[in-house]
Amino acid sequence: MGNKIYTIGREFGSGGREIGEKLAERLGIKLYDKELLQQAAKESGFCEEIFENHDEKPTSSFLYSLVMDTYSLNGYHSAPFLDMPLNHKVFLAQFDTIKKIAERESCVIVGRCADYALSDNPDCINIFIHADMDKRVKIISQRANITENKARDLIQKQDKQRASYYNYYTSKKWGDSQSYHLTLDSGKLGIDGCIDMILKFREILDASR
Amino acid sequence: MGNKIYTIGREFGSGGREIGEKLAERLGIKLYDKELLQQAAKESGFCEEIFENHDEKPTSSFLYSLVMDTYSLNGYHSAPFLDMPLNHKVFLAQFDTIKKIAERESCVIVGRCADYALSDNPDCINIFIHADMDKRVKIISQRANITENKARDLIQKQDKQRASYYNYYTSKKWGDSQSYHLTLDSGKLGIDGCIDMILKFREILDASR
Repeated sequence: MGNKIYTIGREFGSGGREIGEKLAERLGIKLYDKELLQQAAKESGFCEEIFENHDEKPTSSFLYSLVMDTYSLNGYHSAPFLDMPLNHKVFLAQFDTIKKIAERESCVIVGRCADYALSDNPDCINIFIHADMDKRVKIISQRANITENKARDLIQKQDKQRASYYNYYTSKKWGDSQSYHLTLDSGKLGIDGCIDMILKFREILDASR
Repeated sequence: MGNKIYTIGREFGSGGREIGEKLAERLGIKLYDKELLQQAAKESGFCEEIFENHDEKPTSSFLYSLVMDTYSLNGYHSAPFLDMPLNHKVFLAQFDTIKKIAERESCVIVGRCADYALSDNPDCINIFIHADMDKRVKIISQRANITENKARDLIQKQDKQRASYYNYYTSKKWGDSQSYHLTLDSGKLGIDGCIDMILKFREILDASR
């Protein structure tokens, strides 16, 4: 059996990141998120600041996307890489880093289409966390100290951005059950409940080998 | 705590029905599926044959759907019910029966938008089962003794029909993670693995009360 990987996609305000953190803590493994970006930055030679600004944001140029359709993901180290828009370079550097990390160690990876990068890895469990809008609005308005209306706007904007990024770079649909092995309603289960469900999934998977 | 209800939506060939059957067996509770239809038939005074023919099929008439928009689900026992297309009568009789059954006993209900009928029930767990197309194609081609191409066509047709029915009658989207508390990849987990996950979900829910 290889390294045990957990990828977590999440709606904004669903607690997906916290679930990832606590899961990593319980298992004594690393969580990759911003840290992943920094590592990708180092490995690719990009400036960390650029990664911060272009993380999980789809490119806005339709023209660029037309050009990009002619490149394959597997051949990105060839010359055209140099002419790519920065967003694509950031994505591809992350894609490569995610694969390297999964070969090296067990870990939890939050966001960044990690499920797509590791789609051929049988030891990877792809998870998506969601919750009712009303529950998320309460959490975000308290956390950010903003009105519930503003929280709702922020959630919709962030979810839309994450969906665009995911749908653009993968052949799957963000939040669709088919895109993941396991999706959970954190509003119903709570943070610890979600972690218990993920650990149960791994237990079943290990027992079947 | 009320009766414990499990609703199961499922992709064609994903083993969702088998999971429902075995789950009901393990828990010593009833599974409602065709049986639900028969009961609805008896209670509403409809002929069973009509239910069989109109089960989980969306109405094809756009005009009817425009007319239907003026009726509320809660008031369907009033006179306009008599003028409804048969599909709608079947749906509403089932909707009513599902609510009555959930008040009466713990059970598993497969399909028929049961999650939507019981959306206000805190003791109801809404589950969706899916699996990779390739795995489902193999299962269906063996079960029905047809070629893989024919199995693929059949799966696409059945899934489309289920999605149309669900999307038409509920305010949610068939197969979208947000529509369920738990979605599972039966190709990854196996039938028994899915049942174990569902039981774990109930255990967590019970412990949180």
